[in-house]
Amino acid sequence: MVSIKNIHSPQQEEESTFDLSAYLAGRQVQVEAALDRAIPLTYPEKIYEAMRYSVLAGGKRLRPILCLATCELTGGTLEMAMPTACALEMIHTMSLIHDDLPAMDNDDYRRGKLTNHKVYGEDIAILAGDGLLAYAFEFIAGQTQGVPAERVLQVIAKLGNAVGAAGLVGGQVVDLESEGKPDISLETLNFIHTHKTGALLESCVVCGAILAGSPAEDLQRLSRYAQNIGLAFQIVDDILDITATQEALGKTAGKDLQAQKATYPSLWGLEESERQARQLVEAAKAELASFGPKAQPLQAIADFITNRNH
Amino acid sequence: MVSIKNIHSPQQEEESTFDLSAYLAGRQVQVEAALDRAIPLTYPEKIYEAMRYSVLAGGKRLRPILCLATCELTGGTLEMAMPTACALEMIHTMSLIHDDLPAMDNDDYRRGKLTNHKVYGEDIAILAGDGLLAYAFEFIAGQTQGVPAERVLQVIAKLGNAVGAAGLVGGQVVDLESEGKPDISLETLNFIHTHKTGALLESCVVCGAILAGSPAEDLQRLSRYAQNIGLAFQIVDDILDITATQEALGKTAGKDLQAQKATYPSLWGLEESERQARQLVEAAKAELASFGPKAQPLQAIADFITNRNH
Repeated sequence: MVSIKNIHSPQQEEESTFDLSAYLAGRQVQVEAALDRAIPLTYPEKIYEAMRYSVLAGGKRLRPILCLATCELTGGTLEMAMPTACALEMIHTMSLIHDDLPAMDNDDYRRGKLTNHKVYGEDIAILAGDGLLAYAFEFIAGQTQGVPAERVLQVIAKLGNAVGAAGLVGGQVVDLESEGKPDISLETLNFIHTHKTGALLESCVVCGAILAGSPAEDLQRLSRYAQNIGLAFQIVDDILDITATQEALGKTAGKDLQAQKATYPSLWGLEESERQARQLVEAAKAELASFGPKAQPLQAIADFITNRNH
Repeated sequence: MVSIKNIHSPQQEEESTFDLSAYLAGRQVQVEAALDRAIPLTYPEKIYEAMRYSVLAGGKRLRPILCLATCELTGGTLEMAMPTACALEMIHTMSLIHDDLPAMDNDDYRRGKLTNHKVYGEDIAILAGDGLLAYAFEFIAGQTQGVPAERVLQVIAKLGNAVGAAGLVGGQVVDLESEGKPDISLETLNFIHTHKTGALLESCVVCGAILAGSPAEDLQRLSRYAQNIGLAFQIVDDILDITATQEALGKTAGKDLQAQKATYPSLWGLEESERQARQLVEAAKAELASFGPKAQPLQAIADFITNRNH
């Protein structure tokens, strides 16, 4: 560790030279290759095709990349975290497939492509989601190597919690209940987002560090980092729904407004929303101070969240 | 172990005195109490209500009972297997909730009650299934005590496999593809049932023994036992769909015929189907011989499958 620090230049200089695009692109290639290998095409092909269609439909792969980054940051290896990273993307994809269904958000496009049920039918889309969710846990339990079994169990329990009624599913329920109610409270809006998107993001970040065997206080720092970027991510999402074009988003723009959904901009206005997002990103980055220059990827990812345009 | 064997009477006598109804009733009470505790009602209540509605809607609890039985049979305790037993019922319930959806089997009744989506709406029903599936894995990983972590991981991997595209989901896909095709082959019909219902049943039986630390050859015997009763169970299900009344089934009877579904009776006729089911049950029981009188619950459950009328 010390020798690595020594050959690096001081933090300030590193920050200015760290190439996030190259970092993300490199990791993205690794994650996509691992996902491609993780879901082979076998009988009955239709369900594997449907799963692969959505899992390999592009996207930033931010969740798996965050998991890999914290595992490396806290002394683990990419190999230790790759099965969990893949599982996180499977779970995220499951939530998108089910969220797009006619009985839910009824979306026809996702990442610029037809949604799963528009291609394979609702029945297969429901099953593809179920298949991905089950496979995610099987994949972590069966494929993780070089990590004590207790840590792997901790990761599985944390992920299950993040995606179930105590997390993502619970957030979606409150989101559904809040539809057509543009006057919901900030508390409810925060509940929706800390659960619907925040819980899984937090898991990505913390699970990487659990696999590496991080002490509790590092897990707490990383958890706070993740909660802050998670909320910032959602605020920026809300802002982009108003300001970005459909082409840039790769999905229907202006949906929140149309659905009379409460959003951060609708509660705070655009300018204040942007200020809050920036503040959250600064708070997130402050949590990383004790990790030193090794935390550059996470620092840069936090910045990236507020600077992105899709 | 020896002392327990010694206070038991010889196998033949035990078989004739073993009271399966009392055994099942006792276990059922324990499983229902554990399930009730496992899913407390908390905010957002609607999703927990929906999950509880279907999980606590009765049913024979055969899956968790099989898991508990094999764990005890192979030297483990009820406590070691109870979280997995509950998880198995959560997963089974998830599959029923999603299977009943309009986009799938479109069933209004299940176990004599309105199906989940008829009460809570399709969106909540989809999410309740997702929530149960995720929680099942969280519950095993977080609640199992007194079992080495490696075995718990093995159980999670096996269960994930049984419910995903390689198991239940894959079986459902082929089942959907076979709808309206009464002329599918026996091979396809077997694929559907060994995957749609067989894989999870096999997991129930084998996971109990994995938790107890059974040697590989015992796991294989129990696996064959489970595969045989799984297929017998399905054949009897097909027979009952023709011969039983809606009242006894607690769900719409005659659905297979209506849907022009291939079934064992449609391929073999009723009489041959009954013979095959009996033969499978005998083969299942033969696998238990080496376990001696301790295997009475599993012997009796195998018999129960062919003798049931709902």
